[in-house]
Amino acid sequence: MKNQLSIYNTLTKKKEVFEPVNPPFVGMYVCGPTVYNDVHIGNCRTFISFDIVYRYLLYLGYKVRYVRNITDAGHLENDADDGEDKISKQAKLENVEPMEIAAKYANGFHNIMKQFNALEPSIEPLATGHIIEQISMVQKIMDQGFAYEVNGSIYFDVQKYNETNDYGILSGRKIEDLLTGQRSLDGQDDKRNSCDFALWKKASDAHIMRWDSPWGEGFPGWHLECSVMGSKYLGSPFDLHGGGMDLKFPHHECEIAQSVAGVGEELSKYWMHTNMLTINGQRMGKSVGNSLLPEELFNGDNQLMDRGYDPMVVRFFMMQTHYASTLDFSNEALQAAEKGFGKLMKGMQLLNSLPTSDASSQSAEELKAKCDAAMNDDINTPGVIANLFDGVRFINSVNDGKATITKEDLEILQKLYNDYVFDVLGLETIEAESSSDSMDDVLDIIISIRQQAKESKDYATADLIRDKLSAINISLKDEKGNVSWSYNE
Amino acid sequence: MKNQLSIYNTLTKKKEVFEPVNPPFVGMYVCGPTVYNDVHIGNCRTFISFDIVYRYLLYLGYKVRYVRNITDAGHLENDADDGEDKISKQAKLENVEPMEIAAKYANGFHNIMKQFNALEPSIEPLATGHIIEQISMVQKIMDQGFAYEVNGSIYFDVQKYNETNDYGILSGRKIEDLLTGQRSLDGQDDKRNSCDFALWKKASDAHIMRWDSPWGEGFPGWHLECSVMGSKYLGSPFDLHGGGMDLKFPHHECEIAQSVAGVGEELSKYWMHTNMLTINGQRMGKSVGNSLLPEELFNGDNQLMDRGYDPMVVRFFMMQTHYASTLDFSNEALQAAEKGFGKLMKGMQLLNSLPTSDASSQSAEELKAKCDAAMNDDINTPGVIANLFDGVRFINSVNDGKATITKEDLEILQKLYNDYVFDVLGLETIEAESSSDSMDDVLDIIISIRQQAKESKDYATADLIRDKLSAINISLKDEKGNVSWSYNE
Repeated sequence: MKNQLSIYNTLTKKKEVFEPVNPPFVGMYVCGPTVYNDVHIGNCRTFISFDIVYRYLLYLGYKVRYVRNITDAGHLENDADDGEDKISKQAKLENVEPMEIAAKYANGFHNIMKQFNALEPSIEPLATGHIIEQISMVQKIMDQGFAYEVNGSIYFDVQKYNETNDYGILSGRKIEDLLTGQRSLDGQDDKRNSCDFALWKKASDAHIMRWDSPWGEGFPGWHLECSVMGSKYLGSPFDLHGGGMDLKFPHHECEIAQSVAGVGEELSKYWMHTNMLTINGQRMGKSVGNSLLPEELFNGDNQLMDRGYDPMVVRFFMMQTHYASTLDFSNEALQAAEKGFGKLMKGMQLLNSLPTSDASSQSAEELKAKCDAAMNDDINTPGVIANLFDGVRFINSVNDGKATITKEDLEILQKLYNDYVFDVLGLETIEAESSSDSMDDVLDIIISIRQQAKESKDYATADLIRDKLSAINISLKDEKGNVSWSYNE
Repeated sequence: MKNQLSIYNTLTKKKEVFEPVNPPFVGMYVCGPTVYNDVHIGNCRTFISFDIVYRYLLYLGYKVRYVRNITDAGHLENDADDGEDKISKQAKLENVEPMEIAAKYANGFHNIMKQFNALEPSIEPLATGHIIEQISMVQKIMDQGFAYEVNGSIYFDVQKYNETNDYGILSGRKIEDLLTGQRSLDGQDDKRNSCDFALWKKASDAHIMRWDSPWGEGFPGWHLECSVMGSKYLGSPFDLHGGGMDLKFPHHECEIAQSVAGVGEELSKYWMHTNMLTINGQRMGKSVGNSLLPEELFNGDNQLMDRGYDPMVVRFFMMQTHYASTLDFSNEALQAAEKGFGKLMKGMQLLNSLPTSDASSQSAEELKAKCDAAMNDDINTPGVIANLFDGVRFINSVNDGKATITKEDLEILQKLYNDYVFDVLGLETIEAESSSDSMDDVLDIIISIRQQAKESKDYATADLIRDKLSAINISLKDEKGNVSWSYNE
């Protein structure tokens, strides 16, 4: 079949042909950030990976609705069901209202994603924007007998659910292990079993973010929003659910259980999980002291890298590794990526001015087929890039007169590189960052030539230089032998 | 009193000293966009005006919580209580889910605001994110006897409210005129009186955006969200409520009535309203055919202006008129603003290299006092700019050796211009837009000088130029006498 995408479905643990429920529409849901601190570079990898999946689905002609949520309530400190709400806790630390924390870090997240040239999702729903829908889902799950109330909190009854369904279907966890393996319940915990999880939590007096519900004032459990917003905006089941692999358990497992219990349908037909980041071979984390923010990576203001790297270089670097493999950040690797990125971009520039001939030494269609085949093979971005580099070598050969290309093939190649580099991989040319710096450098040269001309009494040349600069709106100012330049008004 | 801000309070119709309820905190609420189409330049003026108010309050040392909402539900077509929901209607037209419309235009709005260098508000709450709170406010208003239910919709009883309160307190409308002056009720309308307004509307079968409520499935009335989100995040009453003057009635009048009826407190102590835009003397509007989007104004792609204007020029232009006066867009006025902006920026540049003396011809403190006085006089931005231009004349005189300034005064002036131009007025230097163009121009000059040197067999100079360029990472390529340049990899 032509241009048929296969993806590794982490639900079935098999590589499968991607067949949407209702083509040409594709509904895709990705778990977004909990906006209580700056997004870290590992999260960015997940979002960039799914940005490429989204872009490739668009390239294939699907009409994609891409939903990526923002968690602005309900995510407790230890990712399980106790501790403080992450956002409320940060709000106390920064001495502001929780929603100011959510706004601040959501804005920061958007700014970083823009720098990475990630497309905006079609809908970016908030947990706090769907409290009523969440309450209604809790009610449905209770109505089906899969949840129970204790002291104003509602818990999902995992054991009960597992009697007729498969809790562990995604993560491979066995309920027997979960029941025996967990820490003992402390007195505060109202759950019947430690593997049960909260659908709705009663708000303590100190809890700021709270809403009315049939069970008193409280707030939704963290897992609930994704089941609710996914099915609200994409139907049940929808096509593709993505996220970082650290979310597979318990978050995604709980999402599935909630949807099966409440909606009576699977949540998503396909699941994709991105792998983790390491830095110089070590897992990244605040405790290890090697946590790296995207901004720090861009501006070089960090202890781990020798200098800064452009967001496009980082993006390119990330896609040189398959999304399902771990990815190691190091100076050497980033510098190599920077060089490779430059080579690719230079090749693209040459595409605009290649001489054409009657025959092609290499087939452009074949290159396109190879790129498509790589992407169709579970979004194999390193494979695509290898093919694009093969193409660059060919382009360079044509440019050097050592190979030839027909006009038709050149057009195919131009479209291929535009489609893949810009649209699918989402790369952009890097603006000459230091354009004002180089302008200074270049004008220093002109000024020194003019100085030299003056010294050798070649006033004609000196005046000519001044006049030519003036014609392009640049004036020179001579102050005690120190010549500076400025744009005219 | 030193640095005491006065503002014209449209609630009391008087210029009043600004005394926040709970200093140093200031709570400020501005009605944001209904995200069903592209924000137009008139809306931008309102948001830029309040951006400057926000910035000036920060400059004065207040701790400001700035809330600007996004209306993503409940705003019906004719701004009153009938017609379709604006967002749902646009969703049908674009054949997508309503929340995709909201996301698309909210993103567009944020992008434009970023180009205008407007600060992000502290919280940007969504109407759909506060349905529970809105339902709860409806209940409170009903409990107080100021609202009634008809067929699943809840209306505010204006006449009843007016018996003990003043409906019209903000807009000056008289209830007698409202009762007699309105169009006759059609059969569909359930209101007791035509001036009553919806707090909650029953959703028809065709209505997509709907939520459960004690009165059945429905959606909130447009006015409700601002009362609810303002008091939720800023308390009651808060300090300052702003918006375009087209919102004064009915929107803001209804907000006040809702809050007084439901919360038992005034909504806001001070109210500020921005005035309208005209283009070439005509009111802007789609029906007049002179509607102008910010993007079109920036890129010049429109029928009304000769060319494009940088967002910073537009921002500067806007603040040359007081927020409460109408502002007319025209080529002449924008070109004059562009020139003025350039003059101001050039003056600021000179501040970095002015020679200092033992005495100052003019007092820097006095200039600062005048700027503060202008802003304290109801955010008189044209007054501030006039003073800043006076300062630029002084700066130019010092630069030309016709006036003098002490080191201390220069420092005061530098701080003053940084504070006012960058922080308070929120202007930015315009990046030399065509930096790569000018780079081309400058290199053309260098290349022609080198060519000339070669022709006069001055190979030393020709080589020197090539080497110097190479040192700053620029290489020349000579192809059949046609010399081009490029950055090295």
